[in-house]
Amino acid sequence: MTGLRQSWVESANDPETDFPLNNLPYGVFSTEGSAPRCGVAIGDMVLDVAGLEAEGILSAGDPPVFSRPSWNAFMELGPEGWTGFRAALMALLKTGSPMRGRVEPFLVPLDTVRMHMPFDVAEYTDFYAGRNHATNVGTMFRGAENALPPNWLHIPIGYNGRASSVMVSGTDVRRPWGQLKSPEMEAPVFAPCKRFDLELEMGAIVGVPSQGPVSVQEADDMIFGYVLLNDWSARDIQAWEYQPLGPFQAKATATSISPWIVTKAALEPFRTSTPAREKELLPYLREPGPMIYDIDLMVTLAPEGGVPTVIAETNYNEMYYSAAQQLAHHTTSGCPMRVGDLLGSGTISGAEPRQRGSLLELSWGGKEPVALDGGAERSFLEDGDVLTLLGAARGDGFRVGFGACTGRVLPALDDPYAR
Amino acid sequence: MTGLRQSWVESANDPETDFPLNNLPYGVFSTEGSAPRCGVAIGDMVLDVAGLEAEGILSAGDPPVFSRPSWNAFMELGPEGWTGFRAALMALLKTGSPMRGRVEPFLVPLDTVRMHMPFDVAEYTDFYAGRNHATNVGTMFRGAENALPPNWLHIPIGYNGRASSVMVSGTDVRRPWGQLKSPEMEAPVFAPCKRFDLELEMGAIVGVPSQGPVSVQEADDMIFGYVLLNDWSARDIQAWEYQPLGPFQAKATATSISPWIVTKAALEPFRTSTPAREKELLPYLREPGPMIYDIDLMVTLAPEGGVPTVIAETNYNEMYYSAAQQLAHHTTSGCPMRVGDLLGSGTISGAEPRQRGSLLELSWGGKEPVALDGGAERSFLEDGDVLTLLGAARGDGFRVGFGACTGRVLPALDDPYAR
Repeated sequence: MTGLRQSWVESANDPETDFPLNNLPYGVFSTEGSAPRCGVAIGDMVLDVAGLEAEGILSAGDPPVFSRPSWNAFMELGPEGWTGFRAALMALLKTGSPMRGRVEPFLVPLDTVRMHMPFDVAEYTDFYAGRNHATNVGTMFRGAENALPPNWLHIPIGYNGRASSVMVSGTDVRRPWGQLKSPEMEAPVFAPCKRFDLELEMGAIVGVPSQGPVSVQEADDMIFGYVLLNDWSARDIQAWEYQPLGPFQAKATATSISPWIVTKAALEPFRTSTPAREKELLPYLREPGPMIYDIDLMVTLAPEGGVPTVIAETNYNEMYYSAAQQLAHHTTSGCPMRVGDLLGSGTISGAEPRQRGSLLELSWGGKEPVALDGGAERSFLEDGDVLTLLGAARGDGFRVGFGACTGRVLPALDDPYAR
Repeated sequence: MTGLRQSWVESANDPETDFPLNNLPYGVFSTEGSAPRCGVAIGDMVLDVAGLEAEGILSAGDPPVFSRPSWNAFMELGPEGWTGFRAALMALLKTGSPMRGRVEPFLVPLDTVRMHMPFDVAEYTDFYAGRNHATNVGTMFRGAENALPPNWLHIPIGYNGRASSVMVSGTDVRRPWGQLKSPEMEAPVFAPCKRFDLELEMGAIVGVPSQGPVSVQEADDMIFGYVLLNDWSARDIQAWEYQPLGPFQAKATATSISPWIVTKAALEPFRTSTPAREKELLPYLREPGPMIYDIDLMVTLAPEGGVPTVIAETNYNEMYYSAAQQLAHHTTSGCPMRVGDLLGSGTISGAEPRQRGSLLELSWGGKEPVALDGGAERSFLEDGDVLTLLGAARGDGFRVGFGACTGRVLPALDDPYAR
């Protein structure tokens, strides 16, 4: 594995930065009084690639693509364009680059910028591809004997989510109202959600469109990059609504993503294999090589005014199905895929209790509340809680990180129909 | 109820036209060598409103909105803009209009144009709000005792569909491949769908965005218009994949819509009430007035080279939940709604066997094949079949019609991975 690539941006050579030269993730930023535009994180700075493009120092082609508030136009250029641009960025930012003097004025300190959605989400699909998560949830709802649905070992199970609810890290999340009915109630009530939860996921972004079925290898080639993803979930709304057509309003309040798209190119050194198959997959789902990534993941929860406690630690390599397998399955019906489609991995849980990616699992349905530093405990999220997902692939003397994916829970509206 | 409004476009005064002056539906058309743009159907003509706008004869505001291949920019103007434009169109086209001479050059015969998608679908949600359909399907799958799920009389059950698969009438539909496994099979196979079906639905188009929960009245005010919708469904794929998260690839091959958006304004005279409630609805779902429409619907099936047989006739007023109720429910979680969101009503079936809106119901799961004129019969769709949905509200001496929503079934690919 390659080691840290040295940059003349000194902070990028810190072994603990999320954004060394090896990474170069793509985001959309603005500064006070300026419009949102494309930027690349390097150490503790953002490189204003829209500015470089305007000055003719860096280009991805004609017409210009970086002055917009999304990376979709760049994605449309396709894998060759992606590769060429990444090589050009590397050349500009590496130690000894003769371009340093012209590039340096376009570095903006990260702590002075505001981050925006890095891309326009065409459609959002959420999967259920973590075996520990599916087993945990299935055990709670159907008993250990029937934990995994019969199709689970054959299909990367997924459902269509709501693209309009995807928001960038840092956006507050309002506790939803919804229909609630526990088994002992005669009829449902309309009330604020009482079991509001997180789901620790990775999101894969489709950068190449397709019109018909694609193989797993072709699907992998279509993926542009990855983000951290928190699929906020209203467990009590879901329990009452989800039969027979799946989750709907329980998942439509918000889905938070980290502001930086870590490219597939940056993650290449961290490829690893999905777990051994318990049942042989149909040929269209078989992987021609390692298709998942070794990415350490962590969740912290900070009560209002309190300090963050690490409530879960796991790894993306726990997934039974890779994003490439999910995308290949997504196309089997002929479903057209578009640039900007977002695929959520499904909740990522390890085998151990501390490795579970949702409070539903961590508190075992509320029966074993999670202890927080400072003495509080949580079965589900409370108003004012700040949730943060963190993730990084670890190389030799460097890390390829995602930045934080954070969100604060706001109290439910007093009266949702008052405006 | 008002009668037929007289137009100087003679064919618009025919009591059997779908497009009298009372209707004025919105579509996107092109002629040989010209770009797709906005048009309005009147009798057997299309009024080129992009041309009228360019000439300064008709305007909906600044910047121009009609030269694009979608009505989204017009929808963005909001209900006041919609009302003003409709009034202006009426004035131009009514008998005696002094503008006739200037407008007439912008009429293009309907039979010379090609129709395109009338709007950009932001997201697509499909509901399950027909009680007869839900009861029929539930009876087949779970027995008559458990036909309706416990939540059905309380929630307009819906799931997110796939916007990229929505296509305009006239587009061929390729029979999909997918994972199939009947209960007696040991493991699934990957094969072409054997139980390909239609679903007769209406689609409601959201024309006003929202950020938080809206009332049923507000939801109704947000709806721009309606189309016919055929939610093509692979029953065998669905049966194996849909637990626990709902339909996914079974519904992602194609959803066809009629090319003309019939505005809510044109349908006003045909408002009627949803059926009496078996269980009282929660206050947020109660309708302040009649919210469904009296629209006759019909489905025909023509085998390859054969004549069409009417296989079903029903009415939109069979729905238990209106589009306004569905949209209000859709927003309860805070789910943001956007201009161009499409809501499928769910399959519309009447109480009688001949009134069922899917072959699944018409053939009772394949046990009672449907007889076609000419001697053929159908349990599910066969390659080459042409399916057509028709719909019209009937006034005194006129009809407000939707035009046809049609699609032909192409055979499955020999090898979906050959390219």
